[in-house]
Amino acid sequence: MEADKGIVDLQEFLNTGVDIAKTAGKMTSEAFHKDKSVLTKGCSTDLVTETDQNVEKFVISSLKEKFPSHRFIGEESVVAGQHCDLTDTPTWIIDPIDGTTNFVHRYPFVCISIALAINKEIVVGIIYNSVLDELYTAVKGKGSYCNNKKLTVSTIKELNQALVITEIGSDRSTGRVTKVLENLRRIISQPNLAHSVRCQGSAALNMCSVAKGLAEVYYEFGVHCWDFAAGILIITEAGGFVCDPSGGPVDLMSRRVVACCSQEVAHAICKLIDIVDYPRD
Amino acid sequence: MEADKGIVDLQEFLNTGVDIAKTAGKMTSEAFHKDKSVLTKGCSTDLVTETDQNVEKFVISSLKEKFPSHRFIGEESVVAGQHCDLTDTPTWIIDPIDGTTNFVHRYPFVCISIALAINKEIVVGIIYNSVLDELYTAVKGKGSYCNNKKLTVSTIKELNQALVITEIGSDRSTGRVTKVLENLRRIISQPNLAHSVRCQGSAALNMCSVAKGLAEVYYEFGVHCWDFAAGILIITEAGGFVCDPSGGPVDLMSRRVVACCSQEVAHAICKLIDIVDYPRD
Repeated sequence: MEADKGIVDLQEFLNTGVDIAKTAGKMTSEAFHKDKSVLTKGCSTDLVTETDQNVEKFVISSLKEKFPSHRFIGEESVVAGQHCDLTDTPTWIIDPIDGTTNFVHRYPFVCISIALAINKEIVVGIIYNSVLDELYTAVKGKGSYCNNKKLTVSTIKELNQALVITEIGSDRSTGRVTKVLENLRRIISQPNLAHSVRCQGSAALNMCSVAKGLAEVYYEFGVHCWDFAAGILIITEAGGFVCDPSGGPVDLMSRRVVACCSQEVAHAICKLIDIVDYPRD
Repeated sequence: MEADKGIVDLQEFLNTGVDIAKTAGKMTSEAFHKDKSVLTKGCSTDLVTETDQNVEKFVISSLKEKFPSHRFIGEESVVAGQHCDLTDTPTWIIDPIDGTTNFVHRYPFVCISIALAINKEIVVGIIYNSVLDELYTAVKGKGSYCNNKKLTVSTIKELNQALVITEIGSDRSTGRVTKVLENLRRIISQPNLAHSVRCQGSAALNMCSVAKGLAEVYYEFGVHCWDFAAGILIITEAGGFVCDPSGGPVDLMSRRVVACCSQEVAHAICKLIDIVDYPRD
């Protein structure tokens, strides 16, 4: 009974999250085709707009109203100086617009990502691309879905048959760019020879692509917990495997993630690529 | 009157081409979600399926029936040993499935590309992504359209504000991979610092993305005339600029192309990147 009650609660959390994500998505798609005033964070390639900030305020205030005892980690709140603490308390982890560079260029790979962690484990994941109207959802133990269609990862087992998704990222310091390109070289060259590489510009949607079976591998360094928290559950509930590039368990605050169609493919990638270091979230 | 007659004829060529592209697209989308038997051409990363071959046969035989005096250059016919000759005679240049690796992985960026060259100049361009139902068309002097909506390129003028599209390609010889990654490094690093890089896996759809204003730059080495012939017209009719990476006029048989939102951005890219050599088509 306790387990059932738990799942019922999770379904309620999902439903509330989905309603809020849909309203938030409407704010994003309404702003999508308009001219935007673009700000930068830290460096000239890390963009933010008023819409990112407004969507996050709306999402956090809506969730707070429903769940006053819960905690929140939101991209724009952390950028504005809030701490990025994950405790055992139910915590919503929110990226109001994942793919802000795409948003600025009207490139239609943008989404909101909302995850709920309880006891530091992701139990609900919601990723919504409102421009293409694609809603990805997952509840722990209940599978993952895109617009209510069940997701299953690819069955490909070898890197030389894989489509690999990664990103060059917004950090352009010479040392990091060199490592990012060297990892790419290893993946596409002999003897690994991945089929090809795709860069879509949204960590959350990259993870949805692996969950959907369109690609076998996604890895990235420099990401934040709000970029990949929901994606972790959406991939694992689709039968995929998520880990740290060291090969160990995925670490939400580590600024890095490997997400694959299987443990075997993930371990092949971990062996192949060098870690690009970032300060923890 | 002669000029009007010419445009009327071009419109007829476009209409016939669009009808054939739509039927061909249906063949591709019907096969899209099925399991495919995948062959390779030349190297293990250059894929082809039965659908590529069947679609090309259908398109060429349909066009031949309508225009018996015209000539044809088709990807699969050339791979099968036909010459790739462009003369002054009206010539249809056809890629039955651009993005075959995507097609194999059910990654929805696939299209048919059909161009008509008269006196070696592209006068009709058709690119149809049947999976997403996006039809791009252009007639010389008449603008370019996506699903009947007029296309206009981005107004961004600086590389450090640009979204750049390119591909790692299917050729994985060490020398070429090194050059491809070095070009990428220059674009994303100081002092050029492009906003980001996208890899979509279809040269034709990459060119449509520039025509649509989603990205400012597309360049690639190793492409064939059938990959970018239609895209040349779709971009220029949207107000963009296409050239050879040397900065000179685009050369259909040169295996390389630079396509940008403006001549200024194109010339900045040409100055920045090194040419990766391939034998001519």
